[in-house]
Amino acid sequence: MRVALGLSYDGSAFCGWQTQPQVPNVQDTLESALKRFTTFDISTICAGRTDTGVHATHQVVDFESPVDRPIASWVRGVNTFLPPQVSVRWARFVPEDFSSRFSARERTYEYWLLNDPVRDPLTENRVGWVFRPCDESLMREAARCLIGEHDFTSFRASECQAKSPIRTIHEVTIRRCGRFIGIRLRANAFLHHMVRNIVGSLVYVGTGRETVRWFEEVLEAKNRTVAAPTFAAAGLYLAGVQYPEELQLPNYSPTPWNFPG
Amino acid sequence: MRVALGLSYDGSAFCGWQTQPQVPNVQDTLESALKRFTTFDISTICAGRTDTGVHATHQVVDFESPVDRPIASWVRGVNTFLPPQVSVRWARFVPEDFSSRFSARERTYEYWLLNDPVRDPLTENRVGWVFRPCDESLMREAARCLIGEHDFTSFRASECQAKSPIRTIHEVTIRRCGRFIGIRLRANAFLHHMVRNIVGSLVYVGTGRETVRWFEEVLEAKNRTVAAPTFAAAGLYLAGVQYPEELQLPNYSPTPWNFPG
Repeated sequence: MRVALGLSYDGSAFCGWQTQPQVPNVQDTLESALKRFTTFDISTICAGRTDTGVHATHQVVDFESPVDRPIASWVRGVNTFLPPQVSVRWARFVPEDFSSRFSARERTYEYWLLNDPVRDPLTENRVGWVFRPCDESLMREAARCLIGEHDFTSFRASECQAKSPIRTIHEVTIRRCGRFIGIRLRANAFLHHMVRNIVGSLVYVGTGRETVRWFEEVLEAKNRTVAAPTFAAAGLYLAGVQYPEELQLPNYSPTPWNFPG
Repeated sequence: MRVALGLSYDGSAFCGWQTQPQVPNVQDTLESALKRFTTFDISTICAGRTDTGVHATHQVVDFESPVDRPIASWVRGVNTFLPPQVSVRWARFVPEDFSSRFSARERTYEYWLLNDPVRDPLTENRVGWVFRPCDESLMREAARCLIGEHDFTSFRASECQAKSPIRTIHEVTIRRCGRFIGIRLRANAFLHHMVRNIVGSLVYVGTGRETVRWFEEVLEAKNRTVAAPTFAAAGLYLAGVQYPEELQLPNYSPTPWNFPG
């Protein structure tokens, strides 16, 4: 039977999702817990392969299980064998043709900025830090041009392996919550470093280094070299994945800072 | 001249505030940064000696400085020599007779609970965890009896060195913020483990294990053995210290979860 799990993890403890020899990664950590729980070797695939330092509150993985276990024990049992940096939040049985990667219709990423003149030990590795005053209403105005189908070449990492730079963004929400600024992006899919590159350029606008019009021109330029540098991994969270409704899978799990309103 | 600093630190990185040989502690960490910044040995005292694992967003320390430096450089300069787990948030010159400990009129502690059936890697070491459903309105009803001057023997650690168990609580605020429950207590001073012991018993009420009346009887009993066990250090934050108004010192710094409303 095919099983899907919802995972939460602290990305600062791992060199990204993907299996690699000799460095801590989420995939090996999960697969070794699955092996201890089932006694079988199990290979997993995931909805979004997060980079080093990037967190997830709602990573979705799936695999073929050689053993028959009740749903609740997939959560409790696997958690027993996982370190504190990863947890299984939910489990579901899924159809044989389900793929957490290819069945996904949309992904939701959140980026959390700490806007504070002084660095904060209590949110270290959990937020991107902007020490200059940052006007989130300017960021919101700039971000409006991202909505819809666009060529996101300007926000695409040079090592990105996607065939096309065209993606469709369905939602951009930017809200201040005290010292924090939350940025939520929902799209059919994302290019490599796309969110962190967008955030880097939005911070240029929010801090007054560049204008809203500049941001719009960056998107139109379809040229990575005109945008701002990639922002820190520490503030990025994979927070949701949307599948066809008939599968009835959970589609979002909140980040440590609940989005206000 | 006498200098006061406001400190923020991640308590999970330290065996408490106080100087101790061979274990990481905040006081030695700060004093060694002060030595590097001033080239002199400097002894500090603090407003509230936090235990192992307890955090601070607003610890206040003071010391006699043998060197004359502008206020801004006490923040930036000392931060240069501090590890990511501690930061100086503000600095002020204070009168020669100021004592961060003895001039304090009130302290504010916040306790943050994660109320979620599954453990959360992203708030590990930052919150106390309650996996059973917890009704914060019952906790609020129970906590009402704490307001005012009381004998807090029932919530006092056996190793507490205070002369009297009498303290005056000026504020108890309990609010839910998504999966989190924030508990704020403001009092003239606190006994050892007082907040964590109160939280332990409030959680018994919130989860339905005990009643509001039981909590009131625990306070009245003046007997530590009738209360619930001490709750985890991980959720506790020293968040404010109030000094006489004429000193014009900052009196509160928010925890990672902004208190709503």
